[in-house]
Amino acid sequence: MPANAHYPQINPPHRLLMGPGPINADPRVLRAMASQLVGQYDPVMTGYMNEVMALYRDVFRTQNRWTMLVDGTSRAGIEAILVSAIRPGDKVLVPVFGRFGHLLCEIARRCRAEVHAIEAPWGEVFTPDQIEEAIKKVKPRLLLTVQGDTSTTMLQPLAELGDICRRHGVLFYTDATASLGGNELQTDAWGLDAVSAGLQKCLGGPSGSSPVTLSAQMEEAIRRRKHVEEGIRTAAHEDGDEEMIYSNYFDLGMVMDYWGPERLNHHTEATSMLFAARECARIMLEEGMDNLIARHALHGDALLAGIQGMGLEPFGDLRHKMNNVLGVVIPSQVHGEAVRKLLLEDFHIEIGTSFGPLQGKIWRIGTMGYNARKDCVLQTLTALEAVLNRLGFKTTQGAAMQAAWDVYARSAV
Amino acid sequence: MPANAHYPQINPPHRLLMGPGPINADPRVLRAMASQLVGQYDPVMTGYMNEVMALYRDVFRTQNRWTMLVDGTSRAGIEAILVSAIRPGDKVLVPVFGRFGHLLCEIARRCRAEVHAIEAPWGEVFTPDQIEEAIKKVKPRLLLTVQGDTSTTMLQPLAELGDICRRHGVLFYTDATASLGGNELQTDAWGLDAVSAGLQKCLGGPSGSSPVTLSAQMEEAIRRRKHVEEGIRTAAHEDGDEEMIYSNYFDLGMVMDYWGPERLNHHTEATSMLFAARECARIMLEEGMDNLIARHALHGDALLAGIQGMGLEPFGDLRHKMNNVLGVVIPSQVHGEAVRKLLLEDFHIEIGTSFGPLQGKIWRIGTMGYNARKDCVLQTLTALEAVLNRLGFKTTQGAAMQAAWDVYARSAV
Repeated sequence: MPANAHYPQINPPHRLLMGPGPINADPRVLRAMASQLVGQYDPVMTGYMNEVMALYRDVFRTQNRWTMLVDGTSRAGIEAILVSAIRPGDKVLVPVFGRFGHLLCEIARRCRAEVHAIEAPWGEVFTPDQIEEAIKKVKPRLLLTVQGDTSTTMLQPLAELGDICRRHGVLFYTDATASLGGNELQTDAWGLDAVSAGLQKCLGGPSGSSPVTLSAQMEEAIRRRKHVEEGIRTAAHEDGDEEMIYSNYFDLGMVMDYWGPERLNHHTEATSMLFAARECARIMLEEGMDNLIARHALHGDALLAGIQGMGLEPFGDLRHKMNNVLGVVIPSQVHGEAVRKLLLEDFHIEIGTSFGPLQGKIWRIGTMGYNARKDCVLQTLTALEAVLNRLGFKTTQGAAMQAAWDVYARSAV
Repeated sequence: MPANAHYPQINPPHRLLMGPGPINADPRVLRAMASQLVGQYDPVMTGYMNEVMALYRDVFRTQNRWTMLVDGTSRAGIEAILVSAIRPGDKVLVPVFGRFGHLLCEIARRCRAEVHAIEAPWGEVFTPDQIEEAIKKVKPRLLLTVQGDTSTTMLQPLAELGDICRRHGVLFYTDATASLGGNELQTDAWGLDAVSAGLQKCLGGPSGSSPVTLSAQMEEAIRRRKHVEEGIRTAAHEDGDEEMIYSNYFDLGMVMDYWGPERLNHHTEATSMLFAARECARIMLEEGMDNLIARHALHGDALLAGIQGMGLEPFGDLRHKMNNVLGVVIPSQVHGEAVRKLLLEDFHIEIGTSFGPLQGKIWRIGTMGYNARKDCVLQTLTALEAVLNRLGFKTTQGAAMQAAWDVYARSAV
């Protein structure tokens, strides 16, 4: 018997993924990925790369020339920006209001930054004044923020931070992995110098490609560390005057030279993931970014109303809730994991657990990307209500549905 | 008009990719990637992850527990191993016989290694004695090798190096991106401590996922640098006694904890690329690794005979040629890029150019993975012959085909 006789074709069961992401990919994105490959310097391929740059400029709402993909998951995009921008010893300021703020600290430390964190209780966000005060005190070279931290479901307001950073000469980065597409993000208008994202949340694709955008100022900071690798460098290549970037794969200077007109060989672009990223952007822009964000707000509201109608308590400061994910306090009558297990096994619906201080205390329910739809919201509410009643938490028959339907009725969707 | 009106669906033209990779993906791999997603901790997903580990043990011919994927291109797998294994100041020895040896030096330098390179002329490889002599002199902590360097098409013999490394207490790594599946590789029998690969060569998939395998000794070296990130670390997590790994994304200690029973959250696994990697391995093992390698040898031989029959000169030391890629000296009568352009435009066949000292001097023609087939070899030979004659290099009508057919006749395929 051949070794692989135990391994049939990939045939995953249908799941409705209503957690904090990944969620179900849009079928059009999956189909785009099934396209046959072309060579990495084929004019067709470089044409697709240029289209991806143009499409993501509209998604990020920017004129930034360097708007491209990092080949890896959203965490790869974060690390590429941090390791390219942070010189060992640089001071960075990180406002931490959840797990992904801790991640920025962690990655910055591995870049040998001097990391200064300020912390907000999980479920809250920072005011611009709090951040400006910390900037004055720390005098960081970079401000590293998370826009939407799915661990708490909170959305940090960023609109006023760009001006603060300009006044103090600070480079301004945000991790928009979980927020982009579901919540407003204005790269240029808000004065962001770098943004990174992923496909697996509101963009409706799979994990494995990280769109990033860099301002001219960020480009300049990275170019000062330029170092072209041996084996492809020529006499025409001059190194920058600052310390090199301590990664080859994540050296965004080299990634720019690969995406730019020089097409200087770096990695071999992950073609199928680029096809996915292109299709995600194409679909989003077809809907329009404002419509897309409004859709996330609507289904987020309907879910919230349904959850409250069921007698459950939402988590955190609702004024700062992300549109696309809701924290739900697990009622004392049930065990959180028992509910998730029954939902998955009998309904094939996945909702999320949580991390750190919130572990076992809240569920996280997403309504994002392809799954920001009325049928997904209503199916999730009815299934959750059925499971809760089965496991001992009693609800008023019909109240959750009525509350969600009322939200939809008001918006006439 | 919506912003994306200019951007139709992905619809790449058919190309026959006969360069040094990427090549056309096996259609079964493309179909596997179009499967709908499941959640990252869904038992179905962790089951697939375990299957991937088991399948790649057979592909790498190893019993290594830690046989898994790095989410990125093959270069990501190289950097993950190097940055996890190399402590700043560690001495490494790199035998360089082409561009990808230079890449290992480059990445090792960015890991702050003390890099010692020995160089062979492009087109040749090293004897075990040459490498042992350099090990005695340098006393490195790691030996970093490339098995098949597509820039020169040469295959470095590795079988005897493991014993040498053991005798001198050296960790032994090879980059098998371009060679795995097309040429023999015995991870355990040859005493390799780490191997990395990619899907886009003989494995018949797209770029974007890097299978790696680590010996117990390599695991131990990495574990000594253990550092669990804030936000998910608990009191039960203890750090190692050596300097931390200066990357979060490429920290293979954390990647092991994500693939292992603890399932400690790290990146969000690139599900579609994992589906691709699983299908690549499944298809290879269905054929059998020995049969797969023999198929690469056969079609490589047929291509070589055809090229010689056409009056063209192969590049390099043929005793050490990789089965899956052939260097062809560009005859003085034609311009190499004009030939490649006409082949691509009129036949939709891509062959490769070259780098560094070989730029403009050789073409590189691959017969690998899904394209290691008789029809691909014969179509490429006839098209190349037609283009060469059109552009001024005269061949004897029928000789190339006859030579290739003779090879196939001897093997009765």
